[in-house]
Amino acid sequence: MKPHKDRAQLDRLLPFVREYQALATKHGIDDIFQDNGGKLLQILLITGLRILPGRHGNDAVDENGVEYELKTVNSGLVKSFTTHHHLNPTILKKYRESQWIFAIYENIELISIYHLKPTDLEFPYFDRWERKWNDTGRDINNPKIPVRFVQKHGNLIYESD
Amino acid sequence: MKPHKDRAQLDRLLPFVREYQALATKHGIDDIFQDNGGKLLQILLITGLRILPGRHGNDAVDENGVEYELKTVNSGLVKSFTTHHHLNPTILKKYRESQWIFAIYENIELISIYHLKPTDLEFPYFDRWERKWNDTGRDINNPKIPVRFVQKHGNLIYESD
Repeated sequence: MKPHKDRAQLDRLLPFVREYQALATKHGIDDIFQDNGGKLLQILLITGLRILPGRHGNDAVDENGVEYELKTVNSGLVKSFTTHHHLNPTILKKYRESQWIFAIYENIELISIYHLKPTDLEFPYFDRWERKWNDTGRDINNPKIPVRFVQKHGNLIYESD
Repeated sequence: MKPHKDRAQLDRLLPFVREYQALATKHGIDDIFQDNGGKLLQILLITGLRILPGRHGNDAVDENGVEYELKTVNSGLVKSFTTHHHLNPTILKKYRESQWIFAIYENIELISIYHLKPTDLEFPYFDRWERKWNDTGRDINNPKIPVRFVQKHGNLIYESD
């Protein structure tokens, strides 16, 4: 098989990609090319949060041990943040005890980061989801939080130039 | 929130990551940080294959329109390539008409690429999966192809230094 002529360009960039991965590894991210790893690194370094080793999902903590949920969205493609595939009272309990970081991307370009407290999400979302779960007895499939809600009610902590 | 001191290092690397994404975009990959996008770019440029616009999954074609399945594995974590979550006769038909490219990674580092023809996979795998499907009438959940089988029977087309 014959390589594409752009391969030389790739080879020129790979050392920097390796450095990026080395930085990610230092911060607990094994693979920048999966599950938005490369974006998560950026969010961690901007916010100063750390990810929790051995915990799955996008859980992070600050220097005081306060827990954060990290959510990202590609705003070019979708208009809402997704939450959890099987939202139930256990997940809701965790959500109510977490701070929330929402990062808005356009493809790989970080546009802005917002912080919301769980109380900001209680009445429009958590309470509603809880009542729905109680009514149906069924886990909720990925209830969403709109980007516009986050932009309106969140505390803007980062914005690209 | 206070940024981590490593943020300067990230900012130094981001221009190169952006160039890597620009190259990926040119080759039909929207997001290097999801679904192994950054690895797929490397495989495409080494093999000279192109991805098919509008097709999901890791389908690619060569300059003659021959179709290829692309599979990657992180050999530090697992010892087999996964195939399809709901393998059935439709998928098998496609598999039998495809050439196969298997890329072996250690985290983000490409170690080797092998090419196998569908006939190489027929008796050990496709035929067996088909009989299993016929016996049970149920889609097969992600049957696997071991890395060792690929290394033994494949044609090595790339190896890292």
